[in-house]
Amino acid sequence: MRAAVLRAGAVETRVIGDPVPGPGQLLVRALACGICASDLHFMDHPEAGAEDDSGMSTYDQDVDIVMGHEYCAEVVGYGPGTERRIPLGTRVSSLPVLTTPGGRKIIGQNPESPGGFGEYFLLTEAAARTVVSDLPSEVVCVADAIAVGWSAAARARVTTREMALVVGCGAIGLSVIAHLRHLGRGPVIAVDFMASRRETALAMGADAVVDPAEASPFQAWRDLARAPAESAARGVGAAGLPGCVVFECVGVPGVLDSIIRGCERGTRIFSVGGPPEGERLHTLTAKRKGLNIQFGGGPSPVHWDEAFDAVCSGSLDVTPMLGRTVALDDVPAALDAARDADGPVRIVVVPG
Amino acid sequence: MRAAVLRAGAVETRVIGDPVPGPGQLLVRALACGICASDLHFMDHPEAGAEDDSGMSTYDQDVDIVMGHEYCAEVVGYGPGTERRIPLGTRVSSLPVLTTPGGRKIIGQNPESPGGFGEYFLLTEAAARTVVSDLPSEVVCVADAIAVGWSAAARARVTTREMALVVGCGAIGLSVIAHLRHLGRGPVIAVDFMASRRETALAMGADAVVDPAEASPFQAWRDLARAPAESAARGVGAAGLPGCVVFECVGVPGVLDSIIRGCERGTRIFSVGGPPEGERLHTLTAKRKGLNIQFGGGPSPVHWDEAFDAVCSGSLDVTPMLGRTVALDDVPAALDAARDADGPVRIVVVPG
Repeated sequence: MRAAVLRAGAVETRVIGDPVPGPGQLLVRALACGICASDLHFMDHPEAGAEDDSGMSTYDQDVDIVMGHEYCAEVVGYGPGTERRIPLGTRVSSLPVLTTPGGRKIIGQNPESPGGFGEYFLLTEAAARTVVSDLPSEVVCVADAIAVGWSAAARARVTTREMALVVGCGAIGLSVIAHLRHLGRGPVIAVDFMASRRETALAMGADAVVDPAEASPFQAWRDLARAPAESAARGVGAAGLPGCVVFECVGVPGVLDSIIRGCERGTRIFSVGGPPEGERLHTLTAKRKGLNIQFGGGPSPVHWDEAFDAVCSGSLDVTPMLGRTVALDDVPAALDAARDADGPVRIVVVPG
Repeated sequence: MRAAVLRAGAVETRVIGDPVPGPGQLLVRALACGICASDLHFMDHPEAGAEDDSGMSTYDQDVDIVMGHEYCAEVVGYGPGTERRIPLGTRVSSLPVLTTPGGRKIIGQNPESPGGFGEYFLLTEAAARTVVSDLPSEVVCVADAIAVGWSAAARARVTTREMALVVGCGAIGLSVIAHLRHLGRGPVIAVDFMASRRETALAMGADAVVDPAEASPFQAWRDLARAPAESAARGVGAAGLPGCVVFECVGVPGVLDSIIRGCERGTRIFSVGGPPEGERLHTLTAKRKGLNIQFGGGPSPVHWDEAFDAVCSGSLDVTPMLGRTVALDDVPAALDAARDADGPVRIVVVPG
């Protein structure tokens, strides 16, 4: 098959062997696959894979790896011992984890579990979800990106006495905004340096946006939180402030620490971005303020399903996030383009 | 008065002016005051005070500061506007925060709020608690140290489906252990490099102790967690593990990060120690494991009162933590001695 292959830090499109479905696995043909910041993190940080003792993410620079974990695909074959409950030709997607004889592997982050930047890849039959939708595959494939923020917003359990600040308006931040909106938890303030991303945040349901180059997001939060209508709505009185929940959705070193230094006492921080390099934190300030940091974790299967259903049914419109589509030959250039913080939230690869 | 005075990084005992009680303040005579690791953190890290924009902790190297925030004292005078509800000669203690015209100040960490390493200091009348106990002042003064761990153990809300690991057996770790025991949340595994501290941990109620130079605390936790009796008690089944709650009670860089790297997925970490220098964390590992970190915050007034009552009533026996007492002249040497991780948990200054 043809695939955009990662090898020793570089990606090139060439012919490699077709994947062969193992026990319980489906062979699928990639229809569309989004380019995610975690693809860039993975290729740029082989040491991060080495640090992962679960073995779910392994970047061996001496073998071919096909990235891509936000996919919509079509069933074209069955491995041994499959139930074959999903007919050939059906469109499917899944949480990007493949069960192999060697354990669970993140799809697109292991030699044994190639991803959607190639013509064919493998899914665990039991995990595959049928696409019940007329929406194009380029739209459906974004569901996995939505699931991360959707799950974070759900697990954060923002109460009616709290107000949220979403730092970073990439796919994760935007899906946090969309789900907070869905849950009726507003107002939501969104923060991004890029005007294009702030516009997308408004389109996805943010009530206010802040350019951190122009104003302090925390001051903007306090100003809105102190508005009489907000105080009254939360029953915190004129002198009180609602609780603050900050979603870190950037993944660049320094952002989480700047949140620690800037936020109110008692703030709950949900760190969904998380830089692969790790980060130096002012833990004394965190201690003085009594902060709580919940680190990401992937989406739970239940939240993944909810996000997938919301995208497939059209109740969550992801089109503000979509940019152009590219062919396999263009993946190396598109990966570079995806580094542009002012570009579209998602460039989608259409391998066919 | 005579006092052990911190100035420009060094402590010496000399005569300085008596403090004068302001509005709502009591003048008190120090009877006993424990030496705490946070005294050492404060004197060693002036930059940490500068980083605190609350102004509660201010290390100005050009003025005299009297440290000491774990005290038992005797009321000897009243400032203007006091209610004088506590008679002269009464023994008192309090949460170490003084309300001043310039705001709330941590006692022993500001020029305006001297602490118990001098003959006299000031308390906010409304915050002062009467000592109802026949116990010596050297015992009563440890209550404040107990309050930090007591509050952390209470706020952590360890459930019956979770098992705790306490890393570091100084005053905070030991009081976490004592309160978990009080709450009936066992078994509790305690971790310290020093045999003397591990013995004290057993005396304070730990069920098992681990020397991290000899064995992995996390493996010890897993071994105990997998014991059939523990699995059955928690209803998690033979394959499951109870939830893990780790209390970081060390305050040395690297410890929190080693917990992040060693602990189980989904672990809740309560960071009560927290190094003043801040710390570099493997946030990617924290994200992959979906960890939650609650940073200290001081004890709530309710928890401080509970800990104070437990110590004064004798229901919590702190004598395993006590070492020698020293006079004011010996404070500089005793501060150095308190750096010894194998020394007693508390050296107590008796200024009289």
